[in-house]
Amino acid sequence: MINSSKDQNSNPSTSSKQMLIGLHLGNGYGSQPGAWRMPGVDPESYTSFDARARQAQAAERGKFQFIFLPDGPGAVMSDIATESPNFNLDVMMTLAAVARATEYIGLVATGSTTFNEPFNLAKQFKALDIMSHGRAGWNAVTSSGNDVAANYGRKIPSSEDRYGRAHEVIQLIQALWGSWGKDAWVHNQHTGQFAKESQILPIYFQGKYVGSRGPLYIPPSEQGQPIIFHAGGSPNAHELAGRFANAVIGSAFTIEDARAQRHAFREAAKRYGRDPDEIKYIPGLMTTIAKDRRTALDRRILLTQHTFGQRVSYLQQMLSIPLDAALLDQPLSKQQLADARPSRYDPRSSHALKIAKEGWSLKDILAHGVIDYHPVIVGPGIEAADHMQEWFEAGAADGFWISPDVNADGIDAFADEVVPILQQRGLFHKDYEGKTLREHLGAPDQYGIDPRV
Amino acid sequence: MINSSKDQNSNPSTSSKQMLIGLHLGNGYGSQPGAWRMPGVDPESYTSFDARARQAQAAERGKFQFIFLPDGPGAVMSDIATESPNFNLDVMMTLAAVARATEYIGLVATGSTTFNEPFNLAKQFKALDIMSHGRAGWNAVTSSGNDVAANYGRKIPSSEDRYGRAHEVIQLIQALWGSWGKDAWVHNQHTGQFAKESQILPIYFQGKYVGSRGPLYIPPSEQGQPIIFHAGGSPNAHELAGRFANAVIGSAFTIEDARAQRHAFREAAKRYGRDPDEIKYIPGLMTTIAKDRRTALDRRILLTQHTFGQRVSYLQQMLSIPLDAALLDQPLSKQQLADARPSRYDPRSSHALKIAKEGWSLKDILAHGVIDYHPVIVGPGIEAADHMQEWFEAGAADGFWISPDVNADGIDAFADEVVPILQQRGLFHKDYEGKTLREHLGAPDQYGIDPRV
Repeated sequence: MINSSKDQNSNPSTSSKQMLIGLHLGNGYGSQPGAWRMPGVDPESYTSFDARARQAQAAERGKFQFIFLPDGPGAVMSDIATESPNFNLDVMMTLAAVARATEYIGLVATGSTTFNEPFNLAKQFKALDIMSHGRAGWNAVTSSGNDVAANYGRKIPSSEDRYGRAHEVIQLIQALWGSWGKDAWVHNQHTGQFAKESQILPIYFQGKYVGSRGPLYIPPSEQGQPIIFHAGGSPNAHELAGRFANAVIGSAFTIEDARAQRHAFREAAKRYGRDPDEIKYIPGLMTTIAKDRRTALDRRILLTQHTFGQRVSYLQQMLSIPLDAALLDQPLSKQQLADARPSRYDPRSSHALKIAKEGWSLKDILAHGVIDYHPVIVGPGIEAADHMQEWFEAGAADGFWISPDVNADGIDAFADEVVPILQQRGLFHKDYEGKTLREHLGAPDQYGIDPRV
Repeated sequence: MINSSKDQNSNPSTSSKQMLIGLHLGNGYGSQPGAWRMPGVDPESYTSFDARARQAQAAERGKFQFIFLPDGPGAVMSDIATESPNFNLDVMMTLAAVARATEYIGLVATGSTTFNEPFNLAKQFKALDIMSHGRAGWNAVTSSGNDVAANYGRKIPSSEDRYGRAHEVIQLIQALWGSWGKDAWVHNQHTGQFAKESQILPIYFQGKYVGSRGPLYIPPSEQGQPIIFHAGGSPNAHELAGRFANAVIGSAFTIEDARAQRHAFREAAKRYGRDPDEIKYIPGLMTTIAKDRRTALDRRILLTQHTFGQRVSYLQQMLSIPLDAALLDQPLSKQQLADARPSRYDPRSSHALKIAKEGWSLKDILAHGVIDYHPVIVGPGIEAADHMQEWFEAGAADGFWISPDVNADGIDAFADEVVPILQQRGLFHKDYEGKTLREHLGAPDQYGIDPRV
């Protein structure tokens, strides 16, 4: 039922060796805990669709290929008293608002294959693809944790069942997306033909986990249908992404790990008979951009100092030495540095020790973001550009998804201070190649029913 | 867990005897089969969110209290070759776009209690309520038909199971909506308090059909939470609406039927200890408004003449007489009129016979809309106003949902030709009383967790 277009366009981002950049658009404040309290930040950004629209527009000004909205529907928050939730109120409603306020940037959101009716997911992502004129991407993940499952009145299924269902759900949804052929929608007012009935067909999908008859009454968008993203690093994730995904939202702390991850996804794509360049591995990067390192560190101290007590005790474990939270302004002693051993259980530990050995004070070590979800740049734009170039040229990444510390000015800082350097180095496009997400990613258009039938 | 505000505001629309008006916003073209082909209609309106936004703005100019987007996710269409689908690509994505383009009008969509994960439905409608600043309404229906169920890979459950689940789903969703108390969201940048943890609580709902732990991390909107609508006319519908709904999307061809329906819903509300004025019964009305009856009939002939062959044979059954589709321009003969007997199986038959006896030609009889889903006005604005006044004053309706023949100009025609007459007669408000749907409907704000706790 599903035929990818055979017209394999040459892949601009690979052939010209240019990277992709996505923006993490989460709770409306930014990726750092204190972001919602920072001067200049609207404290109601969490519920503000105006704020999301402005932030997406800032990324579009910076020629980012996409925004990415993660979702984890309803994990219990322990720190709601002082911190904002991590996610959007609803990722699809946010993307609908953003679609109407932007013109080029790709719109990617997480949608759980476990906790959605597939027909509904198919309908919403394809409606998004229509309203954005071909800019939708679906980050298809299985969700995990009984914490999330409890919101759906059940236990989390086994990994086998979650991934088994995920394969079926993506198949089913791509079939629904393709159930309205490329040229099926005629809408000729003169002849009175609304559509070619022969190109709008049921899918009759019935798997072990899910089924659907179809068709979905939505014509193709300017890119045919949405792009599949995936996130995760397990062998199951490699298989699912290798089979279906054009891009992977990754997470890696070192070049070596990222390179291995990228390789694993590319190998998986080959196993499914695909060109490995069709799957882009995109690890995360967190940024605090300022005119110099000191200014950036001070900004980050202002943002996160309320977390330092807790983080000092965690840093002790990473370095296997006792630390004194009362001595935040002092560098580690020679004895401490000599005793320190990076923990084998936390891949960030070696980097933390490296920073400590540079002689920074304890609070500056923490302000370097040594305990965070991704590699962190705290400094001038060129440091981010250098990091990205190094990873990109080492084959560790096809691009990056950027989590600014504070969205209100951090997106602009990245667009103004990092993007121009990457452009000057020929590592990042100077303008959008087209208006669809597939064009931005160098992926061919995808349609369902063969239009020649 | 759920406490309605005890502050029962006086009900403006009842106390001042004014009616409610909603707009049926469906496929983007209008309610008549040929609408997509009419001159001046953008043939791509089906996929145009700009068109939907303009249409909602036209209704807002006419002070309509709400737009209503029905949904029937995926019934198979037999006439896609010549007709557009009936529904929106996706009702929630459309309402998100419309919310961003309007300021006052209520936003109501159908969401199936059978074919949705309740947590997802709760999240999307409350996100809509936030983004519209308190204008969301959820038409909670059970869906019916194996045709729809097949898109979800299953058979339609029994009526008992569907309504059993519906009661639970609405309870669960209202509990999630109330899981973030009225004053829970503090977002005080100075003190660093983001929220009052004691007012954000799990719901621990576990029913026979559905369950959820919660909470939902979305604060209240300006109206607290969305309003519940229901649609249907069965005893099960009366019970569900009587328990939960503030408004009923109705369907009735005669004053007598509408009055009986309205009475049944009001009685059901009483059984649940509610003030019957809290539930508004809103039957449908279809309109072709033009400067006079002849012009309106000609417009409707242009729209629907391609269906006349089929409709003549159905009219035969309604009147129990043979009719000749070749004699469209002639009135029925005296003999035909004498032999005609309105069918007891179709409540529209008596009205069809009445029109026939007025001496209209066969095609004019059909152009009066005697075979349609609701009562039809084909004529000048005053005829619609008279119909609405008669039903309203007879206790048959608290308002009407209007399906214009062609949205592109039919909404404006209603706003310009019908609304001013109703306003002059004191039957319809001259401007919005507030900015939330609850204010438009005279329903009290609704919150969950008691803010005094």
